[in-house]
Amino acid sequence: MSVVLDIAKKAKEASYAIAKADTKTKNKALQYIADMIEKNTKKLIEANKKDLKSVKGLSKAMVDRLTLNEKRIAEMAQGIREIIALNDPVGEITKMWKRPNGLLVGKMRIPLGVIGIIYEARPNVTADAAALCLKSGNSVILRGGKEAFHSNMAIVRIISEALDKVGLPQSVVQIIPVKEREAMIELLKLEDYIDVIIPRGGEGLIRFVVENSKIPVIKHYKGVCHIFVDETADIDMATNICFNAKVQRPGVCNAMETLLVHKNIAKDFLPVVVKKLKSAGVEIRGCEKTKKIVKDVVKAKETDFGYEFLDLILAVKVVENIEEAIEHINKYGSLHTESIITKDYSNAQKFLREVNSSTVLVNASTRFSDGFQLGLGAEIGISTTKLHAFGPMGLEELTTTKFIIYGDGQVRE
Amino acid sequence: MSVVLDIAKKAKEASYAIAKADTKTKNKALQYIADMIEKNTKKLIEANKKDLKSVKGLSKAMVDRLTLNEKRIAEMAQGIREIIALNDPVGEITKMWKRPNGLLVGKMRIPLGVIGIIYEARPNVTADAAALCLKSGNSVILRGGKEAFHSNMAIVRIISEALDKVGLPQSVVQIIPVKEREAMIELLKLEDYIDVIIPRGGEGLIRFVVENSKIPVIKHYKGVCHIFVDETADIDMATNICFNAKVQRPGVCNAMETLLVHKNIAKDFLPVVVKKLKSAGVEIRGCEKTKKIVKDVVKAKETDFGYEFLDLILAVKVVENIEEAIEHINKYGSLHTESIITKDYSNAQKFLREVNSSTVLVNASTRFSDGFQLGLGAEIGISTTKLHAFGPMGLEELTTTKFIIYGDGQVRE
Repeated sequence: MSVVLDIAKKAKEASYAIAKADTKTKNKALQYIADMIEKNTKKLIEANKKDLKSVKGLSKAMVDRLTLNEKRIAEMAQGIREIIALNDPVGEITKMWKRPNGLLVGKMRIPLGVIGIIYEARPNVTADAAALCLKSGNSVILRGGKEAFHSNMAIVRIISEALDKVGLPQSVVQIIPVKEREAMIELLKLEDYIDVIIPRGGEGLIRFVVENSKIPVIKHYKGVCHIFVDETADIDMATNICFNAKVQRPGVCNAMETLLVHKNIAKDFLPVVVKKLKSAGVEIRGCEKTKKIVKDVVKAKETDFGYEFLDLILAVKVVENIEEAIEHINKYGSLHTESIITKDYSNAQKFLREVNSSTVLVNASTRFSDGFQLGLGAEIGISTTKLHAFGPMGLEELTTTKFIIYGDGQVRE
Repeated sequence: MSVVLDIAKKAKEASYAIAKADTKTKNKALQYIADMIEKNTKKLIEANKKDLKSVKGLSKAMVDRLTLNEKRIAEMAQGIREIIALNDPVGEITKMWKRPNGLLVGKMRIPLGVIGIIYEARPNVTADAAALCLKSGNSVILRGGKEAFHSNMAIVRIISEALDKVGLPQSVVQIIPVKEREAMIELLKLEDYIDVIIPRGGEGLIRFVVENSKIPVIKHYKGVCHIFVDETADIDMATNICFNAKVQRPGVCNAMETLLVHKNIAKDFLPVVVKKLKSAGVEIRGCEKTKKIVKDVVKAKETDFGYEFLDLILAVKVVENIEEAIEHINKYGSLHTESIITKDYSNAQKFLREVNSSTVLVNASTRFSDGFQLGLGAEIGISTTKLHAFGPMGLEELTTTKFIIYGDGQVRE
């Protein structure tokens, strides 16, 4: 039997034990993990140094994400402590109703089972994903980027010890100890043992996973977020929100990539917002109408709309009305996050209803589309496909519900 | 462009229109469809006769399912009228909470988008599935068994007319007008246009769809349902429920296939239940211990456990305790439906918690695992995989939720 198949079988077996573990035991395990991560700071940094020595051809940003230092290790432990404080979703009865024949029908939250997490060279994801799966009663198979191999193995060793200490099977959290890509491909075929695959990383990784998986994948390719500034918008508020959405952290998926402006406010609003964005170094790529109002901008190509710049670049388009804005978003968007800035009640409601994205805001920055910011307490990822979960995913999205029925002898007529 | 791709593109386009259609318009369309199905009874029977004439090699049961007569057409119309009476799930706010910064965060129910339904030669599914998708704001692509080709085309023609009458695009409900299997295979690859595939039919069809689909599939392979009669069970109640679960309709997925009996009640219970089941012609296949108590039964083979007989055959096993029963179910079951008969409070709760199936009952027949019986008002299928939906699926399961956020100028710090 291959290593990967063996791991998957053990994970399935362990999923029954973790599914019925009580909250206290799970929290105790998490507490141990957090404490031992801190205690083993030196060992983790040593393992990480091995990884850093052998990497070749990684970008500066990727090397940065791979690097562990004291501060980051402390943050990792802190992240786990925050998960301890979250409500345990398992066993919650989300609804219950009575049938005419006296049956009490309820829905009980249960873990998904076995979750496969596939990610890039970011050792902090190892601790974070494992802790979220554990708290939500799932067993997890981790497959991190090969560049973080030693760091990941060291973290998982700590987690194994903690699981052992509280009497849970070590195979609740496992990592694929094989660097070759074939191991990941094998994992993606094991639909009899794994319930869902969650890839975290760039679009390339995610497309590869989707192409190769026989297991359902919860995915998020990219975030091409729009803000529509309606004709009744407060210009100060609109400027402030656009600046925040574009500049505060341009490299993330909930940053604004395209700005849509109602034609009746364009003359007043565009000069103000462009000036402010340019002061932060943002390159503006405007449509014809935009260029007529603010001369000093690059002409947008068709391909600039719907493009995820992940950088200080913004596409700008003047639109006729809210209908054109919504059409544009539903055509070019990525089902991620869009915001309308308006004082008009009907347009606010219309935008919320008709924009086909996972997070839709009125008068707020797209940067709030994030599990922590929305109050989920944690985030395992953001789904831009509609099945199972749509938008930021917290602990609840790592569960499903089953029907539980209390009877007193009922039979079907 | 191929016919199938053209249909998929039109379905996607139409999904925006039906997603924002109001309840009144959708109900009006459903009303027209129901009325026109009744008015066109003769035409439908003629189309159905064409199908019946050309079928070869179908079993008697399949020919029966394919057949339309006046009674069945009236039932089809009645089914649609019942869907009119159901609540429209679209637009419902399922939760709303306030963040410390004043943002109001809610979850709004929205349609899934485009649903592909693949089914066998059952014309009533055409009307039923189309009506459920329409009511839940989805557009739908139907692919029925080729034996029902003329019947299905005639039904969809009526639906198109109705959609047209209320001003909705006809492409909200479309059927693949190509009989060849290649058309279905092509459909299953169109992940850019179709959000979910729901196959309805035998295990063979479902496996074929899963193997060939790049689109998420909500599936249900089979129902191997168990009843566990605990040592404290009321013998009359247990007998009554077992009889109902096995005999009332043996050919369906929520019928009991295996009976597990606690060793301490086996001597009192088995003779009674076996006698009653035999009186209805049920063949009993018992384990060694069962055979010691009730002589006159067939010896069960290992393969009888976990087998979906869909017939008047029952596998029976005596177990040591509830733990062994739960283990047996989690090993041999199909995640469908299981019931415990007990007077013991802790065992009832333990069974509900630890049995890994989509519907778990106490002191009631497995036959209640059905959307109508549980009060969902309708059923589009039963899911035995945990992602998105688990168990019987009604209108709500044809929707997802998006985050909607009301702000007044908030930006992220």
